[in-house]
Amino acid sequence: MEPTKEEMALTGDRTYQNLDAAPAYAELKNAARVSLKDVLNPDRVAACQVGTSAGLQYNYAAKPVSDHILDLLQQLSEQQELIPKYWDILSGETMNPGENRKVLHHLTRGQLAADVLHNERNLRDFYAEQQRRIAGFAEQVHAGTILGSTGKPFDTVVQVGIGGSDLGPRAMYLALDTLLQNDPAYAGGTRSGTTGGRKMRAEFISNVDPDDAVAVLSRIDPETTLFILVSKSGTTQETLTNEAFVIDALAKSPAQGLKPRKHMICVTSETSPLAASDEYLDSFFIDDFIGGRYSSTSAVGGALLSLAFGPDIFAEFLAGAAEADTAAIEPDIRKNAALLDALIGVYERNVLELPATAVLPYSQALSRFPAHLQQLDMESNGKQVNRDGEPVAYPTGPVIFGEPGTNGQHSFYQLLHQGTDIVPLQFIGFTGCQGATDLQFQSSTSQAKLNANMVAQIAAFALGQSDSNPNKNFPGERPSSLLFADKLTPKVLGALLAHYENKVMFQGLVWNLNSFDQEGVQLGKVLTKQVLGGADMHPALAAFAKLMEI
Amino acid sequence: MEPTKEEMALTGDRTYQNLDAAPAYAELKNAARVSLKDVLNPDRVAACQVGTSAGLQYNYAAKPVSDHILDLLQQLSEQQELIPKYWDILSGETMNPGENRKVLHHLTRGQLAADVLHNERNLRDFYAEQQRRIAGFAEQVHAGTILGSTGKPFDTVVQVGIGGSDLGPRAMYLALDTLLQNDPAYAGGTRSGTTGGRKMRAEFISNVDPDDAVAVLSRIDPETTLFILVSKSGTTQETLTNEAFVIDALAKSPAQGLKPRKHMICVTSETSPLAASDEYLDSFFIDDFIGGRYSSTSAVGGALLSLAFGPDIFAEFLAGAAEADTAAIEPDIRKNAALLDALIGVYERNVLELPATAVLPYSQALSRFPAHLQQLDMESNGKQVNRDGEPVAYPTGPVIFGEPGTNGQHSFYQLLHQGTDIVPLQFIGFTGCQGATDLQFQSSTSQAKLNANMVAQIAAFALGQSDSNPNKNFPGERPSSLLFADKLTPKVLGALLAHYENKVMFQGLVWNLNSFDQEGVQLGKVLTKQVLGGADMHPALAAFAKLMEI
Repeated sequence: MEPTKEEMALTGDRTYQNLDAAPAYAELKNAARVSLKDVLNPDRVAACQVGTSAGLQYNYAAKPVSDHILDLLQQLSEQQELIPKYWDILSGETMNPGENRKVLHHLTRGQLAADVLHNERNLRDFYAEQQRRIAGFAEQVHAGTILGSTGKPFDTVVQVGIGGSDLGPRAMYLALDTLLQNDPAYAGGTRSGTTGGRKMRAEFISNVDPDDAVAVLSRIDPETTLFILVSKSGTTQETLTNEAFVIDALAKSPAQGLKPRKHMICVTSETSPLAASDEYLDSFFIDDFIGGRYSSTSAVGGALLSLAFGPDIFAEFLAGAAEADTAAIEPDIRKNAALLDALIGVYERNVLELPATAVLPYSQALSRFPAHLQQLDMESNGKQVNRDGEPVAYPTGPVIFGEPGTNGQHSFYQLLHQGTDIVPLQFIGFTGCQGATDLQFQSSTSQAKLNANMVAQIAAFALGQSDSNPNKNFPGERPSSLLFADKLTPKVLGALLAHYENKVMFQGLVWNLNSFDQEGVQLGKVLTKQVLGGADMHPALAAFAKLMEI
Repeated sequence: MEPTKEEMALTGDRTYQNLDAAPAYAELKNAARVSLKDVLNPDRVAACQVGTSAGLQYNYAAKPVSDHILDLLQQLSEQQELIPKYWDILSGETMNPGENRKVLHHLTRGQLAADVLHNERNLRDFYAEQQRRIAGFAEQVHAGTILGSTGKPFDTVVQVGIGGSDLGPRAMYLALDTLLQNDPAYAGGTRSGTTGGRKMRAEFISNVDPDDAVAVLSRIDPETTLFILVSKSGTTQETLTNEAFVIDALAKSPAQGLKPRKHMICVTSETSPLAASDEYLDSFFIDDFIGGRYSSTSAVGGALLSLAFGPDIFAEFLAGAAEADTAAIEPDIRKNAALLDALIGVYERNVLELPATAVLPYSQALSRFPAHLQQLDMESNGKQVNRDGEPVAYPTGPVIFGEPGTNGQHSFYQLLHQGTDIVPLQFIGFTGCQGATDLQFQSSTSQAKLNANMVAQIAAFALGQSDSNPNKNFPGERPSSLLFADKLTPKVLGALLAHYENKVMFQGLVWNLNSFDQEGVQLGKVLTKQVLGGADMHPALAAFAKLMEI
């Protein structure tokens, strides 16, 4: 039985222990291994599936888990108190202890636990208010009541940000762009209750490499472009530097007199230098409780997605994420896709000792989703000390990589099939495509070919194939899971995003990590300042700087 | 002393043995390990560097190798006969034994060994002839003597291909696009002997996902677009399917009467069904001796790059690759960057037992270069049997992943710095940027910031930093190399590409693999056909197909 909210709230005294202190972990190491060739059959395909939310299904039939292993993973979940700790996160406990912060990205898309107050402010209200302000702003831009310096409407939006201010919003934009442009249900106001369709083209500037800004700025018209400067701290080196490029491009535009304050908004924290500036048309806020890699559902993703696609599309996306958050409360791991995905991942990482995971979306729309997951997962759980700062004696977060299928099949799948290491796989697929056009060719549509390829790969990886020519021999026993839905809609995308956020959260809790800080990025920043400032530095660093003529 | 071509040609009787049969391998396992914190100093930074070609330098000061380890790697190179086997490849020996084929991508950009004849044809002449034909064709397109159906000049070129017909050409196009558009030395005919500048915008359709074709076709005008259909066999499912989308788009264009044969060329083998068709404006040829992942310097990359940038830019790119090929003949590993890079990689993979490698270009222009290397490396050396089909008892090709810096710093570097596993790193950088614009901001240019970040990372990874707060402690000892040059020009890009091709080749030879086949991609194709054809198939596969409603 799932405890009530009230029961959960009352059991706030949690035990934090390392994975290797959990009794189930030792049992898992001794549990009989599963041969996929032995167990994979249609009954298993039907049985090993759990709906997450928004129609998204998680199928783990091709994962090497038995009922006994699942029972032990259930025990592990309970011994590590994963659901109560998730409840603590939802309730606004200080779950980022290293930085003494709450972890509130779930609150940007709904409220599952009690009110979260900070300095007497209700933070759900704060996040919802930012979303409303953004919606109002975006509607004015779309209606042409907010115009550029020369009185022309904006047709392009450029996000200037890096890391979580770039990867998530970019991946989400690309995930919906084809749908919004092509699907008749979204395009051109034919959809009831919304004008639908893509409102503005989006571009992104992230890298401090000047060639990034130069290339992007060469393919937009500053006169009709709205720039969103995104930096929580307001001090991100790359983003402030790229702001200078934007200001330069506005000044040099043939359309004279373009004023930055008519073409730039910012998304930042209320206390940042950007928020204090009057150089922006408007400012929208996040706070310290939203980590960059978890900020797609906050104002960081909200401004960009609301401007590009309209506020109601962003609201649908949030609704999907909220559904996945709700689904993740379920304590029975066989009924909780994010929790189960997390635990199977831990089994693969710590018991089977597999150091990498590939994410393989059979959807061109998700072309940059693996890059977002790379940050989400590797920055959250790429840690070697636990939440109390003690070294852990087991592997934590894996290397995450991936590219869309079928492209990957013609690239790195060779190693996945026949390499010396086994890489666990996460397939993502959709029965239908996003665009309005599909063609029959040689008796099947492209979408059917796409999905036939995907399921064929699942079977090939799991089952392999013996061949008397060892070069053509496939060992099989290569595990994969499949996340799938009817179609990649805004709601499904929100659910997919939140599924992974919650998976990573649960894994961090199993490993007893603080998944919400990123101290590992600090040293490089310090040394960079030494190089640029000509300060005393390690002589080898000075020698490398000289090589690069800095 | 380097043997002469004649001496090399005479010593064709090679010994093929597994890595673990080489005496140096056991000695490497026993050799004292190197602490980067102990050894890294300015003298080492200056000493551990080798020029490759075209101004490209390989610095390995932050790699964990001692003189003793390098001596053993030199012995390993000799015991595995790497240079003589390279010479065999250059000489047209059958170095892809599984498919009974020569391996001749080097010959597409020059000739280092004796003539290679096949069926009485001189293959260097054949490749050069294709390059000349492409150059002539591209010049006619650029001059407006070849026009579209309605008499308008072509301004866009779309490559339709997948795997090696997509990843390499796409990465190379993106690598030069900003330079060609922005650098005054290339733009607008100011460069002596060339009209310079980007001639045509390029786009790419690869995935069988219909949304890929739909999205690309929605942002080009078929009336002024030339399509390149690329498939060596002429039977690639994805590419033929996407050809149907192209034909559909031509038929539906508002500019009526667009004829496919006026808008499509193909790059294929002479014996393919495409070559036999009269549906193409022209056809350019490759052959079975050019593997897809090695085809950027053949007609596969040549048609696209010559049309986009002009034949002389493509010729410069080839010249850079040829220089790197020449540099790779040197038997002294301390003077051969590709060979040394390969051997240090083997040391990291087999002695230090590190399963992944990250490629980190500090250049936005190289945004898709890691994706190309992923195919190049993982498809070549992701093998578990040796060239004779016997299982090997050691790890072979690693997982390859990467994103441009500084973006990656704000994403997965957390794990690289503080994760539980060590990931060897390959930095790539350039002292100057490609674009004409760079700005001073807070006392430094963006390019200086970019490179300061890069060298700071090298130092941070190698040296780490102790901190009493374990969460802020950096263990260091994380190895990296640095490939760098003044600027990413066509010539440097060619050298960079060939460096990696030769590195991967040498590693395959150390591991005693056939790096030039890819049998691991076959099983998925067979099972896909079963699904699409409704043939008898494994019942679990049928169950997965039903899930996806195929």
